[in-house]
Amino acid sequence: MAIGILSSVLARSGTILGSDHSSVVSMNLFVALLCGCIVIGQLLEENRWMNESITALAIGFCTGVVIFLTTGGKSSHLLVFSEDLFFIYLLPPIIFNAGFQVKKKQFFRNFMTIMLFGAVGTLISFGIISLGAIQFFEKMNIGNLNIGDYLAIGAIFSATDSVCTLQVLNQDETPLLYSLVFGEGVVNDATSVVLFNAIQSFDLSHINSTIALQFVGNFLYLFTLSTLLGVLAGLLSAYIIKKLYFGRQSTDREVALMILMAYLSYMLAELFYLSAILTVFFCGIVMSHYTWHNVTENSRVTTKHAFATLSFVAEIFIFLYVGMDALDIEKWRVISDSPGKSVGVSAILLGLILVGRAAFVFPLSFISNLTKKAPCEKVDFKQQFTIWWAGLMRGAVSMALSYNQFTSLGHTQLRGNAMMITSTITVVLFSTVVFGLMTKPLIRILLPSSKHLMRMLSSEPTTPKSFIVPLLGNRNESEADQSNHNVRRPTSLRMLLSTPSTTVHYYWRKFDDTFMRPVFGGRGFTRFVPGSPTEQNVDQWQ
Amino acid sequence: MAIGILSSVLARSGTILGSDHSSVVSMNLFVALLCGCIVIGQLLEENRWMNESITALAIGFCTGVVIFLTTGGKSSHLLVFSEDLFFIYLLPPIIFNAGFQVKKKQFFRNFMTIMLFGAVGTLISFGIISLGAIQFFEKMNIGNLNIGDYLAIGAIFSATDSVCTLQVLNQDETPLLYSLVFGEGVVNDATSVVLFNAIQSFDLSHINSTIALQFVGNFLYLFTLSTLLGVLAGLLSAYIIKKLYFGRQSTDREVALMILMAYLSYMLAELFYLSAILTVFFCGIVMSHYTWHNVTENSRVTTKHAFATLSFVAEIFIFLYVGMDALDIEKWRVISDSPGKSVGVSAILLGLILVGRAAFVFPLSFISNLTKKAPCEKVDFKQQFTIWWAGLMRGAVSMALSYNQFTSLGHTQLRGNAMMITSTITVVLFSTVVFGLMTKPLIRILLPSSKHLMRMLSSEPTTPKSFIVPLLGNRNESEADQSNHNVRRPTSLRMLLSTPSTTVHYYWRKFDDTFMRPVFGGRGFTRFVPGSPTEQNVDQWQ
Repeated sequence: MAIGILSSVLARSGTILGSDHSSVVSMNLFVALLCGCIVIGQLLEENRWMNESITALAIGFCTGVVIFLTTGGKSSHLLVFSEDLFFIYLLPPIIFNAGFQVKKKQFFRNFMTIMLFGAVGTLISFGIISLGAIQFFEKMNIGNLNIGDYLAIGAIFSATDSVCTLQVLNQDETPLLYSLVFGEGVVNDATSVVLFNAIQSFDLSHINSTIALQFVGNFLYLFTLSTLLGVLAGLLSAYIIKKLYFGRQSTDREVALMILMAYLSYMLAELFYLSAILTVFFCGIVMSHYTWHNVTENSRVTTKHAFATLSFVAEIFIFLYVGMDALDIEKWRVISDSPGKSVGVSAILLGLILVGRAAFVFPLSFISNLTKKAPCEKVDFKQQFTIWWAGLMRGAVSMALSYNQFTSLGHTQLRGNAMMITSTITVVLFSTVVFGLMTKPLIRILLPSSKHLMRMLSSEPTTPKSFIVPLLGNRNESEADQSNHNVRRPTSLRMLLSTPSTTVHYYWRKFDDTFMRPVFGGRGFTRFVPGSPTEQNVDQWQ
Repeated sequence: MAIGILSSVLARSGTILGSDHSSVVSMNLFVALLCGCIVIGQLLEENRWMNESITALAIGFCTGVVIFLTTGGKSSHLLVFSEDLFFIYLLPPIIFNAGFQVKKKQFFRNFMTIMLFGAVGTLISFGIISLGAIQFFEKMNIGNLNIGDYLAIGAIFSATDSVCTLQVLNQDETPLLYSLVFGEGVVNDATSVVLFNAIQSFDLSHINSTIALQFVGNFLYLFTLSTLLGVLAGLLSAYIIKKLYFGRQSTDREVALMILMAYLSYMLAELFYLSAILTVFFCGIVMSHYTWHNVTENSRVTTKHAFATLSFVAEIFIFLYVGMDALDIEKWRVISDSPGKSVGVSAILLGLILVGRAAFVFPLSFISNLTKKAPCEKVDFKQQFTIWWAGLMRGAVSMALSYNQFTSLGHTQLRGNAMMITSTITVVLFSTVVFGLMTKPLIRILLPSSKHLMRMLSSEPTTPKSFIVPLLGNRNESEADQSNHNVRRPTSLRMLLSTPSTTVHYYWRKFDDTFMRPVFGGRGFTRFVPGSPTEQNVDQWQ
């Protein structure tokens, strides 16, 4: 390239950048790779097997190989995996956008099921993986792992990565399954992180019932406070924007305020040692319910797409990162004397993940089915299998937790720690690529597309009349007939009265219209403009 | 706060964040301050004196005082001023957005004047400030400054900060003055940075004509290559998006690709030691001329506002940062034994800035006026005064250069270096606050608002017919009559033929329509949708 040759001529003029030149090279390559992922992802969109996560992983891995070969085996990665980068910059936009774009009606109607899978299920999975790890790894003599390490392994490999599956499951085609898998993913992330923190800070030498109770209390505290903080931040943003009335000229101010308030809620949760993931998720929900309706039309379009874009780029970034970090030679060198053992550890972990997830998805679905009477409410085996499959992938959260546990004290040189890091990478790569490649075809076989449902939904009335409960019941019935999903839904007024969660929704609706919306704005209390972040054909929070 | 009390209860559960807790506190405070600046800025919008920069500076300064008092005088800043943060994250969105939203017609028509002021003017200013600094500071015996330091002082204080003025000058009300001040600001930034780099890398012990010629050649190289790189990056993005045709569902991909390509151009320029500021500026211009017309309507709205929002937040961030960093006690302690000398140095620098700028604005305007025949083309004294005033503010670029020169080798403890750092802060604060506060009233006196011009412009035809040259001439004449600006503009077809720059525009237009737009898209070659990033009532690049 001419520019490249001339650059050497101009090299004398130097650059203002304080950082060294190699980091500029890394950033260039990284941004170029991100562009490449987007373009290739677009070209492969119609492909039967691929999705954007696998594309990014593959590109990252190939780049790693190229760097490995050009540097003569010295290094393979552009950037070392950093927890801070992940938890402070990449995760918040993904989770916030998830809350901002989620179909709230489905999420709240399935709230109990989601909690059952996300919290109880993760604990079961954690228990099985921890016990299995103790059982197998102690016999294999893989190094200096203590009880805390084994429990941490349980927490690390209980953290599912649903990003990959969510790219395949369609929110419009299979709304209930999507909300179950997605909701479980969010609660699961929070549970794993809380578990992991608890393991690192509790005294594990004498576990008794008091500590167990404390632990449960701690979890409930965290969940409640994190949710409250997110809701408060969302309401505050709605109130400020409604009161100040920024007007037509201030789209930039409105958008900036929404982004900053959302980020503030995340950082405040970190400050108070809460679960920032839950906080920013609920902040997103509240913002799309109130704040989003108080801003100008341009701000609505901008926020909807800007948040989605940030989330999209962050996801690709993570997969590229993981793919590139996989070849880091340092870690592999330590365990190079026993490659068989390393493969064995990874295989055992994968097996434990499969068993651990099966051990709660099928029994909990069975329990959930027992409480339902109508056959159309039950989760059939195909759906159970999809839920099980959707949570098998392990991703960036597992990576981050693993790095935190096994490298934080600079112990990477220890064989046990190096073994766990490399096994985590192996499990993440294998589950994302192999399970990920099989997801699209699998879902196509298990869940035939239901486009007609979408058409029906979009012709659905969105006027306040549709909020009247009997109508709601009827509509849900017709929806349920076509998609065969598992949540409690009234088939008549009689059944509606016996279904507490829908009744709660009805009273929430009344409360929202009477007290909340007049203060915080929201649809109907600011002028209506078409195009909402939740596709607007599904009523919100009703 | 209840959450605050409970957080201590929950503190045991720890947090996943690898960074220490104090940095989380800093980030929280900083994000909260950014929110505060936006809200207070909105409340003060109608105020006669204030603008967002001064609000942010004041809030930052007050926070510094509070931190100073609460920590018992130990520290005053949340974050230490970092060049990397500024040049890698904050400056690119500001400059890119400037290019993306600039009225291209005005900018290119005034190209020669802008270059005269930006390049020659900055060199004159640099010479006067350097000579003045040598003259005064050697007598004052302020410390260990060598010839390189004195020349660096010249470059540091030649870098204007037009952000503050641009918030006051209205692009729609005074388009020509805006484009002159803005264009000069961009070229000035580039010139100062190139100068500064040249001073740091050239051997200054024997300056002769060969080195001077090399220096000029270097500057021309940098300017040409940087511009080319930006144009190429913009064209590439237009071509990719046009070829792949992302379609309605892929707004996120389009937006992500535009942001990433723009950023890539900036980083590539850094990689090749070019002027990244110029590169990303021209990339913004090309993107708004081609790429922006190839994307979906949602992407257009999103990019327009997302880029403006990023730029807005980055600007506030910088001023907040500078305000907060001002009280950093370390630097003041070193010079505390001679406060009078420090005030003297700052006053001399301010004086040199005033003189240095006057020394090129008025003479260059005079030369520029000599080449014009029609009285309406000349820059009158009021406008000259406004141009002079608009470049008096010193801001983040000066700060970054000063930190680079005087702290890079860990020499802050040396008296001369500490003196220069504190003087830079004083000059930046004083010029931004005092000159900044006077700008709004001053411009209101010098340049009476011309709202009727805007009305006329928006009823202007935007069909291809208006690109025909005689019409262009006529329209510009009427525009010139009303705003009395200084650029060459044909008053008749005869004059048009004698005005080369307009003829160049005419041929550019033909070239653009015949060769460029069919390949890269652009208005008229993709379906037209109302609402462009340049307000669409001014034709682009014609």
